Amino acid sequence: MYPVITISREFGSGGHSIGEKVAKKLGIPFYDGDIVTQVAEDSGYAKELIEEQGEYSSSANKWFDISAASAMYFQSPQDEIFIAQKKVILKCAAEGPCVIVGRCADYILRKEHIHCLNVFIHSDMEHRKERVLQRYGSIKDVGIEKRLAKKDKQRKTYYKYYTDQNWGNYRNYDVALDSGMLGEETCVDIICELYNRKE
Amino acid sequence: MYPVITISREFGSGGHSIGEKVAKKLGIPFYDGDIVTQVAEDSGYAKELIEEQGEYSSSANKWFDISAASAMYFQSPQDEIFIAQKKVILKCAAEGPCVIVGRCADYILRKEHIHCLNVFIHSDMEHRKERVLQRYGSIKDVGIEKRLAKKDKQRKTYYKYYTDQNWGNYRNYDVALDSGMLGEETCVDIICELYNRKE
Repeated sequence: MYPVITISREFGSGGHSIGEKVAKKLGIPFYDGDIVTQVAEDSGYAKELIEEQGEYSSSANKWFDISAASAMYFQSPQDEIFIAQKKVILKCAAEGPCVIVGRCADYILRKEHIHCLNVFIHSDMEHRKERVLQRYGSIKDVGIEKRLAKKDKQRKTYYKYYTDQNWGNYRNYDVALDSGMLGEETCVDIICELYNRKE
Repeated sequence: MYPVITISREFGSGGHSIGEKVAKKLGIPFYDGDIVTQVAEDSGYAKELIEEQGEYSSSANKWFDISAASAMYFQSPQDEIFIAQKKVILKCAAEGPCVIVGRCADYILRKEHIHCLNVFIHSDMEHRKERVLQRYGSIKDVGIEKRLAKKDKQRKTYYKYYTDQNWGNYRNYDVALDSGMLGEETCVDIICELYNRKE
């Protein structure tokens, strides 16, 4: 049996919801928001900052722009958050089977040789738009497609920065599923089946 | 129900074998080598040339090096093979549910708005090496890893040239599976389940 299921996901693909349902169906803990709470306690940073900087590179985060030389001497808030998140993720994995969403968990656990079922959830733009509109209502000023593209870019940049690998590259996942084409329930069932099959 | 299952695969990932088993289990035709035979009949080109140039760009294929201007006036053997393959693929799909392996079938059918279950099969280098050694025996002169990397590169280049898209990009597939991690039988079962679930 896999000890941990990691779920990486495009913004608006339903990865969070799929992960939550998988955990419920398998009767194992689900970690997404809980990680933020724990990191806030451990690091002292505000939850909002952790949510903002714990998965996304941001134009507001000047640390991504500083030179490599400077980066050797300073640790940015984002770096501190990454390190605190890593500790929490390793702690979660050590406690037993669970589902962890996002936050480079696939990479962090692979580096520690913890055998995971690594899942990537993506979807076409139409289904993502529909889901985001249902969840957050209309998004003012910036068009929704632009917002989704920006979120993708920020996650990609964040992942690249901390793992030196490409987010969404098939090599990093045991299974990648298109939740728009397959539907959320099918994704949940397939992940549970894969998890249960593994000895 | 999906009319067609397309299987794109890394060399040595077992995609051919998985596709064959899926077709058998679902009781639908399987097209891989048969496409080559049909294209040979339609185009007059030798089977060996079609096998060599029907999925791979090759350093021996000088047509990939000619300028765009020249390409407007000349049709290379590879272009003729691509066009003949496309006709055969569309004919196969028109005849009913089936499994088609490789040859940009996912792209060709998407352009014609034929709803497919698009599958990508990949695997880690260790499992691919093992499979290729079992199938072809030892490979002289060039190391096996080099050979696999070259095959990947040739398929990528071929796909890029004819589709202007990136081979292996998750957006092009409903499901991507790591056959090395999951095992061949699990991949077969998952694909059949996805196929049967779709109305």
